[in-house]
Amino acid sequence: MSHKIVLDHGAGGGMSRELISGTIARILGDTYLGELEDSTLVDVPAGRLAITTDSFVIDPIFFSNGDIGKIAVAGTVNDLAVSGARPLYLTLAMIVEEGFLVDDLERIVQSIADTARAAGVHIVAGDTKVVRRGEVDQIFLNTTGVGVLERKPLSSRAPRPGDQVIVSGYLGDHSIHILSVREGLGFESRVKSDCAVLSAPIAALLDACGEGVRCIRDITRGGLGTVLNEFAEASGSGIDLIASALPIRPETAMAADMLGVDVMYLANEGNLCIVTAPEAAPAALEVLRAFPETAHAAIVGTVHGDGTEVSMLDDDGHKTRVDLLYGAQLPRLC
Amino acid sequence: MSHKIVLDHGAGGGMSRELISGTIARILGDTYLGELEDSTLVDVPAGRLAITTDSFVIDPIFFSNGDIGKIAVAGTVNDLAVSGARPLYLTLAMIVEEGFLVDDLERIVQSIADTARAAGVHIVAGDTKVVRRGEVDQIFLNTTGVGVLERKPLSSRAPRPGDQVIVSGYLGDHSIHILSVREGLGFESRVKSDCAVLSAPIAALLDACGEGVRCIRDITRGGLGTVLNEFAEASGSGIDLIASALPIRPETAMAADMLGVDVMYLANEGNLCIVTAPEAAPAALEVLRAFPETAHAAIVGTVHGDGTEVSMLDDDGHKTRVDLLYGAQLPRLC
Repeated sequence: MSHKIVLDHGAGGGMSRELISGTIARILGDTYLGELEDSTLVDVPAGRLAITTDSFVIDPIFFSNGDIGKIAVAGTVNDLAVSGARPLYLTLAMIVEEGFLVDDLERIVQSIADTARAAGVHIVAGDTKVVRRGEVDQIFLNTTGVGVLERKPLSSRAPRPGDQVIVSGYLGDHSIHILSVREGLGFESRVKSDCAVLSAPIAALLDACGEGVRCIRDITRGGLGTVLNEFAEASGSGIDLIASALPIRPETAMAADMLGVDVMYLANEGNLCIVTAPEAAPAALEVLRAFPETAHAAIVGTVHGDGTEVSMLDDDGHKTRVDLLYGAQLPRLC
Repeated sequence: MSHKIVLDHGAGGGMSRELISGTIARILGDTYLGELEDSTLVDVPAGRLAITTDSFVIDPIFFSNGDIGKIAVAGTVNDLAVSGARPLYLTLAMIVEEGFLVDDLERIVQSIADTARAAGVHIVAGDTKVVRRGEVDQIFLNTTGVGVLERKPLSSRAPRPGDQVIVSGYLGDHSIHILSVREGLGFESRVKSDCAVLSAPIAALLDACGEGVRCIRDITRGGLGTVLNEFAEASGSGIDLIASALPIRPETAMAADMLGVDVMYLANEGNLCIVTAPEAAPAALEVLRAFPETAHAAIVGTVHGDGTEVSMLDDDGHKTRVDLLYGAQLPRLC
């Protein structure tokens, strides 16, 4: 095989087959359940399935503790898990630029296989398209996920006055890491991406707290500010945050300041916002803190019945509104 | 809303929400089942599901009797239907270039809605990313499909000696149409794209012929030559085609000749290759010919037990091998 991807790798003939069965399916190994037919058959129990889809256009595609493949699996697995579903199956579609290095493709597929294996999900169907130079920037992925809902679904309409708001890890780290790599700012060794599969801590949380967990959201594009505004609007409740309780690394705060961006709106790739009943909050924190990927979980605010605004209380007792972000943030962080 | 897509339409905040709930979800209307949460819940019966994924990078995105949206729905619905499944749900992911016209996006989403409604499938989850100018060519789509298998699955391992090979429509038309639009060849008014949803004729065929239908494949990238080589290899049988029986429009043959491409390897987007038991072939033809989208169905060859080659018999009785395509065909036809 050539060392660069060529258009014929996407043409559907012999070179496509070599790439798909000889490289991609070989590396995916036992995480791949497909039979290279037009569609793949899987068995499911009767009931409710959760379905989600996401495209990944991150730049750069490799960063110090992850890559586009890891993000593509973790992001979709997390989107299933936060609905209360057990992730089962992913599809994998790749759009690759002519001239892309086969070695880099293999490295991405290996990362997909490793992350899927760790998350306990199978890749069940795939598609690979190759376009000419300049028609896509290196490689874009899509993963679509299917999970089974074995408990009552979680909904952003569920929060009610008195509920506690938990954030499971440091805000903004993924975005600051990627921006630092991209712009050469030198923060990337001190602030790593938080990209992680979170289905295990979520399952443990739901097992421990049952219906004490009202809803969970993965903090991605739009950041915590957007998640909380969506919770507030859907539930018809207001949310008060305590500024000093927000888990933010000093290095992340400093970098955000330098870049002129607000940590409240930065994407993570392995960070949860959870609303729990007041009596469930201590157990929720204990469960989350037992997992390395959610070890820095903290209660950051409270749901109240007075309006549907999200506000932040600073150390001096001043209250400022946390709006839904309308304007400019940065593209291609995930 | 601005008349062009800007980066903030993909940033996850207020402009993303306006685009998604104000434009995309509004146009999808009752074909959209999602709740704009991270994942969508759907009910399924116990049993086997078929899952498939496909990215669509067609250039041009609009052509005389279709567009990228129609292709994205029809292609994935057809991939489910050819496995014997009843298509139920699609996800829709879009990667859009900054500066893309909102009017064009609305036109594509309307086409997705119309095609999904006609096919009886629902869009259950979506994702919209915006990348900078030059990082993607206009718009790429991904649709992932889920269907339920209510009968014995069809498999390309099933063909056996004596079986008949049927093609449901004119070969190569979609590719010739797209190439003609792209290169300004002037064929596009005489050779239209065959892009069509084929789940209805497939369901009727399976109802009428039961297990007399061995397998079905959508003739897309790689063309009939590739489909037949895959059938031959999977089933361990050879296939003899009759050149004069292949449904090919004279205009398509002429255009292919002019372009130096072989109709046997050109993609359709609404054409089936079907293998049936010999006794089922007449009923299969009758069923298919009753649908406008498969009205030109014809028996084009026979499965035999002598090797696993695909061969073509011409009018003079000469036999030539139809190889798996290895080299160059044309990108971005679907």
